[in-house]
Parts: sequence; C-alpha cells; structure tokens
Amino acid sequence: MDIEKVNSMDFGEFVDVFGNVVEKCPLIAAAVWSQRPFLDLEDLQKHFFAFIDALPQSGQEGILRCHPDLAGRDLQQGTLTAESQREHSGAGLTSLGADELLRLAELNAQYRARFGFPFILAARLSDRAAVPRELARRLLCPPAQELRTALGEVKKISGLRLADLLCANPAKL
Amino acid sequence: MDIEKVNSMDFGEFVDVFGNVVEKCPLIAAAVWSQRPFLDLEDLQKHFFAFIDALPQSGQEGILRCHPDLAGRDLQQGTLTAESQREHSGAGLTSLGADELLRLAELNAQYRARFGFPFILAARLSDRAAVPRELARRLLCPPAQELRTALGEVKKISGLRLADLLCANPAKL
Repeated sequence: MDIEKVNSMDFGEFVDVFGNVVEKCPLIAAAVWSQRPFLDLEDLQKHFFAFIDALPQSGQEGILRCHPDLAGRDLQQGTLTAESQREHSGAGLTSLGADELLRLAELNAQYRARFGFPFILAARLSDRAAVPRELARRLLCPPAQELRTALGEVKKISGLRLADLLCANPAKL
Repeated sequence: MDIEKVNSMDFGEFVDVFGNVVEKCPLIAAAVWSQRPFLDLEDLQKHFFAFIDALPQSGQEGILRCHPDLAGRDLQQGTLTAESQREHSGAGLTSLGADELLRLAELNAQYRARFGFPFILAARLSDRAAVPRELARRLLCPPAQELRTALGEVKKISGLRLADLLCANPAKL
C-alpha cells in the first residue's frame, strides 16, 4: 500500500486499516485522519506519535491500560487482537510451559499493582527468555521513568504495525 | 452497582465494565480510572466529559469517527457493539423497511462527506421517524456548530450508558 492509497481513504476505510496501530485505540487513528494528506510512512507515524505525546498523563496511562498482559488472560482465552496474537507468536510466547506462564503471571500482577498499567514490551524485538527478565528489571524502576519506557514500547509496536501495513522496512524509520 | 464497588475496581475490571461508555473508546475509560475515587455517578460522568472536552479537535473528531452509522453497515452485518445494538432496537431502527434504510444510507453518506464524521444521535431519546428528519436538518448546519452538537450527543449516549451500569435514573443527572 503506498501513501497515495492512504491519502485517498475516507475515514471509515482509514480506521478499518489503521484502527489497531495503537492497541485497542481506534480513537487515535481516527484522530490522525484529520491530519491528512501524509507525505510518507514516516510522516504518518509522526502524527500518531504526536497525538500520544500531546495527551494528558491520564490519557497516556489510558493507552497503556488498553494493552493485554503478555502471555496473560487474553492469550489463554483466545481474545488477543490479531496483531497482538502475531506478536506473541513471533516472540515464542504462545508456546510457554506451565512454569513460565506462572512466573509471568506473578510478575505481571506485581507490575500492574505497582504501576497501575500492564507491562508492555515490543514482543517482536524480544523473545520468550528475555520477556520475564526485562519484566523483573523494569519492576524496580521509578514510576515516572517506567511510564516513559512503556510509552516508548507502545511507539515501537505502533511503528512496526504501521510498517507492516505499508509493507515498508521499519529499520528505515 | 454502587460507587464503592466502582472505586474498588482494578483498571482491568474498570475497563471491562466502562470501556464502551464512549463507543469503541476504551482509552477514555482507562484514562478516567486515573481520577478515582469517584464521589458518585455524577462525579464519574464529569470525569468522562472532562476528558472529552480536553482533547484537541482532532481527538474529538476521532471519538465521533469511532461511532457507527445509524442503521448502517454494522447493523446490517451484525457487528454493532452490544450497547449500540440495544440503542438501535429501542429506537425501532432494527426493523426499518427497505425504503427507510435507503433514505438513511443516502443521508448518512451526505453527512459523512460534508463533515468528515458520522451522524450521531442519542437513539434512545429519539425514534425511527425522527432520525431521518433530524439528520436532514443537521446536514445544513455549519461544521463548527455540528461538531459541538455531535459531541453533545456522544455525552447523552455516554450518560445513559453510565446510568445503566450504575442502575441509576439518568433524569437525575
């Protein structure tokens, strides 16, 4: 899909295609449509990120809270979004053993209780061994720093999803 | 459900229960959770409305664009949210004849092309005869006024959904 195609979309098409670039936040894609036309993928991505950055802290926390736990309830119940399911698969999180699942569930619960949002990591840039290690490490970070880190992971995930949709190489972004 | 129950919810429960108070915008409920504890239903509603009011115009338009056309594609395809399906039923919009559906489809398309968001009306406060009449009337309004009107309808819908969830009488709000 090239940028001319993107710029030709009415808002219904645009939200159908880009609505889950930020997990379960079609509001953001629907807002970004107001900024068309877009120069290229980088420009489109810039508008997604600018919207996130301009939200009040409660809104940024709200974005985080729309994300599932990694290898948590939604994976077990088959209710992950298609994008998140693929990311879980790519990182090997769909084939964890009982011990690994239990360990992650405990760490996820501690993280949610400490920060008030779920642990978010761009799973496609990680793997099943690194996820619990990174979770345990970030559990010890100060809350303000962890909010910034989590939003950075949201942007990495969004950038990869956008690049997928435009069939571009995310390394160039 | 009383307000103590609401205040005792972790963010996962809160988003499960209140995530569709604003249609397809769980981000807003997830952001409002940051403002707990809530005094009562009115206070909870106030925080939803304050979040909407504080968004940039693109974000407010984004909220509108997450709504379905009344008696449109989602109704025909069975993909309305449970809340919207009930609201459609209550207004008699699920039993329109072919002529009425065609007339509404034409008006909805004109409205979307003119304003860049779908026609939104608190269907539970209206009925199948009033909907096309109101749509035809609002089609002629200036865009800035229509944005305000549409956000007012979103708030009416949200207020009714909140009152349903807390089993309160919305007339008291």
